[in-house]
Amino acid sequence: MFKKLFHNPIECKSKHYVEGKIHPEIRVGVCRISLTNGEQIDLYDTTGLYGDANHTIDIERGLPPARSRWQEGEFRTQLSLARRGVITPEMEYAAIREGVEAEFVRAKIAKGEAILPCNRNHPEAEPMVIGRDFLVKINSNIGNSALGSSIEEEVEKALWSIKWGADTVMDLSTGANIHQTREAILRNTPVPIGTVPLYQALEKVDGVVENLSWEVYRETLIEQCRQGVDYFTIHAGLLREFVPMALKRVTGIVSRGGSIMAKWMEHHAAQNFLYTNFNEICEICADYDVALSLGDGLRPGSIADANDQAQYGELKILGELTLKAWEYDVQVIIEGPGHVPMHLIEDNMVKQREWCHGAPFYTLGPLVSDIGAGYDHITSAIGGAMIGWMGTAMLCYVTTKEHLALPNKDDVREGVVTFKLAAHAADIAKGNRSALARDLAMSRARYDFRWADQFNLSLDPERARRMHYEMVGNSDADYCGMCGPHFCAMRITKSIK
Amino acid sequence: MFKKLFHNPIECKSKHYVEGKIHPEIRVGVCRISLTNGEQIDLYDTTGLYGDANHTIDIERGLPPARSRWQEGEFRTQLSLARRGVITPEMEYAAIREGVEAEFVRAKIAKGEAILPCNRNHPEAEPMVIGRDFLVKINSNIGNSALGSSIEEEVEKALWSIKWGADTVMDLSTGANIHQTREAILRNTPVPIGTVPLYQALEKVDGVVENLSWEVYRETLIEQCRQGVDYFTIHAGLLREFVPMALKRVTGIVSRGGSIMAKWMEHHAAQNFLYTNFNEICEICADYDVALSLGDGLRPGSIADANDQAQYGELKILGELTLKAWEYDVQVIIEGPGHVPMHLIEDNMVKQREWCHGAPFYTLGPLVSDIGAGYDHITSAIGGAMIGWMGTAMLCYVTTKEHLALPNKDDVREGVVTFKLAAHAADIAKGNRSALARDLAMSRARYDFRWADQFNLSLDPERARRMHYEMVGNSDADYCGMCGPHFCAMRITKSIK
Repeated sequence: MFKKLFHNPIECKSKHYVEGKIHPEIRVGVCRISLTNGEQIDLYDTTGLYGDANHTIDIERGLPPARSRWQEGEFRTQLSLARRGVITPEMEYAAIREGVEAEFVRAKIAKGEAILPCNRNHPEAEPMVIGRDFLVKINSNIGNSALGSSIEEEVEKALWSIKWGADTVMDLSTGANIHQTREAILRNTPVPIGTVPLYQALEKVDGVVENLSWEVYRETLIEQCRQGVDYFTIHAGLLREFVPMALKRVTGIVSRGGSIMAKWMEHHAAQNFLYTNFNEICEICADYDVALSLGDGLRPGSIADANDQAQYGELKILGELTLKAWEYDVQVIIEGPGHVPMHLIEDNMVKQREWCHGAPFYTLGPLVSDIGAGYDHITSAIGGAMIGWMGTAMLCYVTTKEHLALPNKDDVREGVVTFKLAAHAADIAKGNRSALARDLAMSRARYDFRWADQFNLSLDPERARRMHYEMVGNSDADYCGMCGPHFCAMRITKSIK
Repeated sequence: MFKKLFHNPIECKSKHYVEGKIHPEIRVGVCRISLTNGEQIDLYDTTGLYGDANHTIDIERGLPPARSRWQEGEFRTQLSLARRGVITPEMEYAAIREGVEAEFVRAKIAKGEAILPCNRNHPEAEPMVIGRDFLVKINSNIGNSALGSSIEEEVEKALWSIKWGADTVMDLSTGANIHQTREAILRNTPVPIGTVPLYQALEKVDGVVENLSWEVYRETLIEQCRQGVDYFTIHAGLLREFVPMALKRVTGIVSRGGSIMAKWMEHHAAQNFLYTNFNEICEICADYDVALSLGDGLRPGSIADANDQAQYGELKILGELTLKAWEYDVQVIIEGPGHVPMHLIEDNMVKQREWCHGAPFYTLGPLVSDIGAGYDHITSAIGGAMIGWMGTAMLCYVTTKEHLALPNKDDVREGVVTFKLAAHAADIAKGNRSALARDLAMSRARYDFRWADQFNLSLDPERARRMHYEMVGNSDADYCGMCGPHFCAMRITKSIK
């Protein structure tokens, strides 16, 4: 049933493989588009073997390992190896995807300015790199809730996200069968998987926040490390002293993990156990090479709360924790807001970069207004494109149903494509060569009325093709349905001289 | 049949009227939302009498004049009056809508930094002001094409746009019955109407560009002035010497009017007749107080062409024409791009402001990438929000079908709401008090789980309401369908202490 999710959506698209130079055993899949004018364009591809028509998919068995052989003999994290000057197969793999030198990837990881999330127990994932000097990535969130959803549905949502271009997927399940759902997702996804371990820990104490403990959390962390989760959101920077600041806000605490930890601290009159046990968290994560995504439990949930004392207080602590994690050779990214008006976005990026020592930024939006209910994929794509341009490494998608409901399949598609567009716009503004080449190919196809090429070069070929055919019904037309044949500016321009 | 378009979409919403102080005969309609906590919020309202439940609509007869009495004895333009220190009823009307002093509106119009488009023959339109120091406005485009559409359909599209918040509407009809369609639109719309007179002029010569002439154009201009069109897009800045520059581009000329004038100039080996007859155009427009929207015939149609010699060459000429129009007391706005990557947007705004002497900027997008086919309302909302924040006064909406087909009703709604959101985000970033108040009210309603208030404060209450109810089915729920009852961060926050 899953195979058809990946039926080839793009005419003339095929999976092409590039071999490594340093590590010849590497075969990096790219999406090759053969244009009707004879040119070829290779695109970054997240679909793994699902995008390969020659591969037979077996969801019961899971994906074959994408990198198991390489790990033999490696007992350190990518960060430790990078610091020692080692270019791992994973680094070369990611470098080929990005079109950069492997040494460049190594150097960025060594400085902490990029991460390569790859739990040694998730060999199904294809190596990729997250950092401001690379293509801007996007994450999609899936996961069941108390209101239901089956394991199969969640795997399908993960693969559906990846089909439309999600670079990583976070499983935020809070309902039944959390372990089994995650297992099915990990064994069948070619991208890094993130989680918020606190959610499962809370389920283990039947949802009673007061009954949470470091022991339950630690056990959950190890369970998830063993399964192969590639990065953990950990709300270790939300200190007890920040809670009163947050309670004075217009919208208080809007991070689920943040609100849980705040409630636990107030009840026990104790400091955040994720902060006090951060060293051990790092030790555990180092064993499996799980990256830390330091959560912003105090991200603003409204324009009025943006860039306030609570948010920035926590961000400074995240910077301290970054240095500590690096001592353990653990890779780190920093989570960011939230609701932020346009004129305050840059300050977030500047402070994050400074206070967190160059660790990559991973933001939710930001949403540039509070009134976008029903259209918050757009409210957040505006802020996401801007902060991506300014240097954010990964954008967490927001769907049209944000603040209202869980997204369905159509909403996930719309959300992923919207954020691919925002990330791509950021890549364009940053001057990324492959991004510019794609736009140029698109515009040349447009000026030549090569419709099939335009569809194949767009982010959602099916949608573009449908809209064109509904109006014009002809892919050879030298005009579009918007202006019609007599008022086509490009057609008139071509008739000059 | 039109009445039902304006059935009240917002619970507890009512039309409220504010009287003028300087001109007591003025009654300015605002949309008043009564929140469930007893507060009231007044919102800028574009719906005119259609939004008033007490008004009986008669499309055959048209709207009653909104400002006919005030004009008696006035034979000059708003600009000439502003320069003489006169605060007209129209200025006070617009000032009340904006929540500013009438004198402030007068001063901005006098300096050319704002326009108040109000053809004396379109008294149905409610006065409004366009300028960087006011709320960012949005325009929606409608109009039939050779592929068809009836007069009734076009009126319906205009009213539908206005229902969702369009501040002005451009009728870009190029098909049959252009005059009659425009007449029906003018007599039934409470917002300023813009056109591109060149389209009708071209229809008068059976679509043969070479047969266009100043005489046919002039006759069309006067016809449309008499009917009541409030602003004209005129491509007078596209000089003959710029055409070779444009032909070297990746996407040539993508403005319909621009391509028509370029073709005419090349055929006749003559200068643009809109440029050579610009003085007479100004004389005609001054007689009716029609504002000029100086068209950017050379706007870039691709990232590769952004901010090039052709585009900027034309922009400088638009600045010269601005000064000339001002000599005739004619109000001016300047049209802007187009496809522009994020990092080049600011330069457009800076140069426009400098070269065009502070005249308001009116942009299409800009679109921050070329590959967004099917999602170009979003590609352009990103650029639109940014350039709006930087000072653009009005954004022309772009629909999801841009580059592909004509929008249907759903596309128009999505496009208008998307651009209201972009404009609002710009207002927020500029610190507009009424915009900030709306976001604050929304966020307080969100934190209090006042769902009905959240819907009423959003830009598309119907859509937000539907999404919430599909998942939760209960407007009293103290959680949303996204996180469910157990993982609601705001609910957990409220339980602290």
